[in-house]
Amino acid sequence: MRHEDLEGDGVESSAWDYIDGGSGDETTLRENLAGYRRYRLRPRIMVDVSRIDTRTTLLGSSIAQPIAVAPMGFHGLVTPEAESACARAAGEVGALMVVSTFATTRLEDVAQVARGPLWMQLYVFRDRTVSEDLVKRAEAAGYRALVVTVDAPVRGRRVRDLRNAFALPPGLAPANFPDTRADGSTAELAAQMARRIDPAFTWDDLAWLRSLTRLPIVLKGVLTAEDAARAAELGAAAIVVSNHGGRQLDGSVTPLDVLPEVVLAVAGRCEVLIDGGIRRGSDVLVALALGARAVMVGRPVLWGMAVAAAEGARDVLSILGAELENAMAPCGRTDLASVDASLLHPAYAAPFKPRL
Amino acid sequence: MRHEDLEGDGVESSAWDYIDGGSGDETTLRENLAGYRRYRLRPRIMVDVSRIDTRTTLLGSSIAQPIAVAPMGFHGLVTPEAESACARAAGEVGALMVVSTFATTRLEDVAQVARGPLWMQLYVFRDRTVSEDLVKRAEAAGYRALVVTVDAPVRGRRVRDLRNAFALPPGLAPANFPDTRADGSTAELAAQMARRIDPAFTWDDLAWLRSLTRLPIVLKGVLTAEDAARAAELGAAAIVVSNHGGRQLDGSVTPLDVLPEVVLAVAGRCEVLIDGGIRRGSDVLVALALGARAVMVGRPVLWGMAVAAAEGARDVLSILGAELENAMAPCGRTDLASVDASLLHPAYAAPFKPRL
Amino acid sequence: MRHEDLEGDGVESSAWDYIDGGSGDETTLRENLAGYRRYRLRPRIMVDVSRIDTRTTLLGSSIAQPIAVAPMGFHGLVTPEAESACARAAGEVGALMVVSTFATTRLEDVAQVARGPLWMQLYVFRDRTVSEDLVKRAEAAGYRALVVTVDAPVRGRRVRDLRNAFALPPGLAPANFPDTRADGSTAELAAQMARRIDPAFTWDDLAWLRSLTRLPIVLKGVLTAEDAARAAELGAAAIVVSNHGGRQLDGSVTPLDVLPEVVLAVAGRCEVLIDGGIRRGSDVLVALALGARAVMVGRPVLWGMAVAAAEGARDVLSILGAELENAMAPCGRTDLASVDASLLHPAYAAPFKPRL
Amino acid sequence: MRHEDLEGDGVESSAWDYIDGGSGDETTLRENLAGYRRYRLRPRIMVDVSRIDTRTTLLGSSIAQPIAVAPMGFHGLVTPEAESACARAAGEVGALMVVSTFATTRLEDVAQVARGPLWMQLYVFRDRTVSEDLVKRAEAAGYRALVVTVDAPVRGRRVRDLRNAFALPPGLAPANFPDTRADGSTAELAAQMARRIDPAFTWDDLAWLRSLTRLPIVLKGVLTAEDAARAAELGAAAIVVSNHGGRQLDGSVTPLDVLPEVVLAVAGRCEVLIDGGIRRGSDVLVALALGARAVMVGRPVLWGMAVAAAEGARDVLSILGAELENAMAPCGRTDLASVDASLLHPAYAAPFKPRL
Repeated sequence: MRHEDLEGDGVESSAWDYIDGGSGDETTLRENLAGYRRYRLRPRIMVDVSRIDTRTTLLGSSIAQPIAVAPMGFHGLVTPEAESACARAAGEVGALMVVSTFATTRLEDVAQVARGPLWMQLYVFRDRTVSEDLVKRAEAAGYRALVVTVDAPVRGRRVRDLRNAFALPPGLAPANFPDTRADGSTAELAAQMARRIDPAFTWDDLAWLRSLTRLPIVLKGVLTAEDAARAAELGAAAIVVSNHGGRQLDGSVTPLDVLPEVVLAVAGRCEVLIDGGIRRGSDVLVALALGARAVMVGRPVLWGMAVAAAEGARDVLSILGAELENAMAPCGRTDLASVDASLLHPAYAAPFKPRL
Repeated sequence: MRHEDLEGDGVESSAWDYIDGGSGDETTLRENLAGYRRYRLRPRIMVDVSRIDTRTTLLGSSIAQPIAVAPMGFHGLVTPEAESACARAAGEVGALMVVSTFATTRLEDVAQVARGPLWMQLYVFRDRTVSEDLVKRAEAAGYRALVVTVDAPVRGRRVRDLRNAFALPPGLAPANFPDTRADGSTAELAAQMARRIDPAFTWDDLAWLRSLTRLPIVLKGVLTAEDAARAAELGAAAIVVSNHGGRQLDGSVTPLDVLPEVVLAVAGRCEVLIDGGIRRGSDVLVALALGARAVMVGRPVLWGMAVAAAEGARDVLSILGAELENAMAPCGRTDLASVDASLLHPAYAAPFKPRL
Repeated sequence: MRHEDLEGDGVESSAWDYIDGGSGDETTLRENLAGYRRYRLRPRIMVDVSRIDTRTTLLGSSIAQPIAVAPMGFHGLVTPEAESACARAAGEVGALMVVSTFATTRLEDVAQVARGPLWMQLYVFRDRTVSEDLVKRAEAAGYRALVVTVDAPVRGRRVRDLRNAFALPPGLAPANFPDTRADGSTAELAAQMARRIDPAFTWDDLAWLRSLTRLPIVLKGVLTAEDAARAAELGAAAIVVSNHGGRQLDGSVTPLDVLPEVVLAVAGRCEVLIDGGIRRGSDVLVALALGARAVMVGRPVLWGMAVAAAEGARDVLSILGAELENAMAPCGRTDLASVDASLLHPAYAAPFKPRL
Repeated sequence: MRHEDLEGDGVESSAWDYIDGGSGDETTLRENLAGYRRYRLRPRIMVDVSRIDTRTTLLGSSIAQPIAVAPMGFHGLVTPEAESACARAAGEVGALMVVSTFATTRLEDVAQVARGPLWMQLYVFRDRTVSEDLVKRAEAAGYRALVVTVDAPVRGRRVRDLRNAFALPPGLAPANFPDTRADGSTAELAAQMARRIDPAFTWDDLAWLRSLTRLPIVLKGVLTAEDAARAAELGAAAIVVSNHGGRQLDGSVTPLDVLPEVVLAVAGRCEVLIDGGIRRGSDVLVALALGARAVMVGRPVLWGMAVAAAEGARDVLSILGAELENAMAPCGRTDLASVDASLLHPAYAAPFKPRL
């Protein structure tokens, strides 16, 4: 979405770039979307599609559609109601929401207004007591899972932000860190993250994380069969196939590229979600046909909120849900259990050789 | 075709969008055409091509070219003479015409002016007596086959129409339903169709349909080998490989993608037609080389009528026929029986693996 | 080349369209050129390239480069000196020229000024005495081969000409037909050609043609292995792999697509030339690496003449020759005998499966 | 980079074209870059990436990153400090610099200011005493290797230079030739190079070159497995896979196309570098994953110098180094020894069949 399309929305163009941009030449940002255009669905006829059921569960939580709100920092950039607006919207349409560590609303406050299931996104910090504190707060506030972002040991080079010298507007700060005194400038933010996020967090530390909590652990940022298998083996309850929305390594594989190898590698041992580039209900259907249990959607939710706060987010999510139903019906699929790879034309499926 | 190219044609731009548009991002709409560009014909030399014969039959009806007018609703949007103009044009060039249930002219009135063979397009309605009535009227009026549209149990999301809030102009209404009192607005139309078309019409109901009539049944909207085989098995006289002109599921396979698997699956048990994206005589030749018996052409006929009513439609159809002859001659083919897959360069044929 | 690039050249824009245009949507016209861009040459190092020899022979005639001027009608459209200018240019650079039946200069007059070898292009007319007369005149005038165009039994649909209602300017006429009284309008030209060229000329008539003359016969317009093999078998001395510069069947294979299958099919029994899309010396090298003995170049020669008559044509041909040398040297090839398929990177060669 | 982007930089637009341009239609120039976009990196997670070490050696010289400055003539075109500025920049970031024979600074003067390792680029001239003199001067000045350019026995046809009639500005001349009295015009330069560079330099002459010096010999311009194997066999210490930045044969393979076949062919017998199209740190990583030991970077260094002399070059090199680290971390690679082909998604690797 282009900033110009949102005349008078009150969002700074540098904030818009922060949200919409990717790293490097934004090749991966574009490829995340383009990949979905390369698949082709096979419609089926004369099936009774008078009722379409898109319900499923994620780690036991019921949701109305296989769609979750991806963790994104600083919702306050697009609307003053910030994460609370998003949580309300997700609840209204029966979607799960993942709340970012770098939210502009305290995680307890988000939980207060939420009516659907919440998961808490976490970075593992050098100062492990900060992470431990967040885990305990999330658990206490009723979050149902911890989503550990594992693809950001260092920050991607986001050229737009570097050129804009992007800074958080005055008054916006990561609300979950009461001690934050940063002026919010990019340099400062990057420095903070470099200082705080532990680039030495490894597989060996997973046991420590699991020891902190009864909550299931979700690893977000898996992009290879090798790492997916290891995650499953070490007890991850779910993984999110993701390249961080094209914001980390430009030139990396896209989640869609590797979804089949990941699904094959985990062999049902944990749930598999995917994010990055989902813009239409038919994209959701492609992801599910390739073995994802659900998708996460990021930027479109913020776009919706930039237009109309909670209502905007709700509209985005409900249109996506409606489009999914509208794609399932002509494919003769009335529930998610019947969605499988036979929905996809084999000549258009991406090439795939597992590497295990 | 762009609306701007038709200055002063009297067609509302929203009507133009209704005709030209497709669903979703219109990927499939574009791919329907683009697919034909990927094939390459193999010219043959020093064959006597002084006479080119393009005659064939469709379910026993003789036609001058392997080209039929696809069923399209509301011809009245482009010319006041509506379906009558089209029927006259088809008759003049020896083409078959398929009349839509949602015509703006009563099916009996179309039959009155037609000089060539007519088929009647049908939706199966929830209220089966409505369908039964149409079947009997078509039979009585001399229609030679029933074309049952099976790819529209729900309506595709056509974004242009949603943005335009497209409404039928005052005075235009589906003429085959004397009780129609709708104001013709999109919301109303969509609601009508949702109310009327039965999303629970299944293979089991085919026997009922066949019991109503002696007319041969054609299933329109088949896109898989599986469904094609089943149609042939259950006695369909013909099938139309079609994705509804890119107006239903955006992201679906194109008819051309799947024509080979469909032809293989029916194994001669019924006739196979194709529509979607045919714009040149060489496209017709590609479709025939891949095993179609004939093609259906939609939008170009309406474009012709927007310019010059019956004469416009006739010109479009006769140019297409002339182009077909002009493509057969350099390929050394003098009749349709000699058209086969050896006409196509194998390196450019679409990949194809049957899935039966 | 665009007409606008030639300000003040005195060439009518409709004549320019006649020269530059192709048939249908001009897909094939564009693909003729694009195909060459898909190959990649493999440079070789540390070879003594102080002398590059591009000489070869065509049916025994020596030429300085493996480049000939393709037969094109009506050189008078671009310069008043017409075919005589072209013949002079070809002679200066040691190229062979093929003179069109529809030249604007009498074939005897061209021969008078030519200093290099000439071949005569022929259509086989319904009135065989017309063809016989041309054959005898060409033989008498010293032409060294007859190039029979076999890919134009009917005329391609050239949309630009139809839209322009292209007519030959007053004063221009096919000079080899003293009885021509046509006003030169397109309708008239097309009608003339339809009337004159025999669409019933077949393989069986080749014996008649050979009985007329001692000159070797070249078939121009071969695009399949099947026809190439037959031509070789029936005694053609050479064939030209050609789709008539994209002016006949839009959607056909390109000459480059099929050159390997043709070369394989003739198995050295006759010489193989190619035309269509050659714009750089490296294109010539690609064609030769795939087995062509020489290339024919058409439009660029007329472009050169539009700028500067004989000098323009000479510059075009000599630049092409210089570029060929400039491509051979870094590939470590010092003569044409050393040019073979090992010059081409196998991953970029077009797919090819012979169909014999 | 476009000249317009550098308002007021003091670089003539014809000089800019000389630097940025390629030969022919600049297809190869563009493909050099485009090839890198076709690869996809496979990020790995939960690896300790708190320290990234990009150090390596080239022929025994330590460098901080696997990045060297490619040999380029006439640095004086972009900054009066010319090669001295570049040498200072390279030294500051720990990069190796290859100095061109056609430098605008005497090779001894460059050596004076350099703080990092230098290699000397050489052409083999017809007058071998000129080459011998350069070899001895380079050895005396402390250069550590001789880079013999073997892909320019004849000069590529650079259309921009031909159109601009490019001439070196007054005052600029190849400083290593005290006898140069040329006016610096293109015609003169091309004539000089044609006169001076020996197109008859062959593999047999390599022994002579080796007899002149103790310095290791690097062959620059290798593009086939055959020539790579021969270079290794005959004692080249390193080869540079290069197509001369797209300035020689337009239509040639790109270095990236052939890197795998070259690496396989030399089988570790000599070091393999690559240049052409490297613009991002992730490009460096792709080249290393395919087996290159280091990359050379050309035009970007001149762009940097056009903006800010030594500081500009230093910024370009240090950004590239930072980007490389920023690409290694998310791939879970902490040193260059761990970089291998498993970093690349197999479905996106270029096709490759060795031809030995």
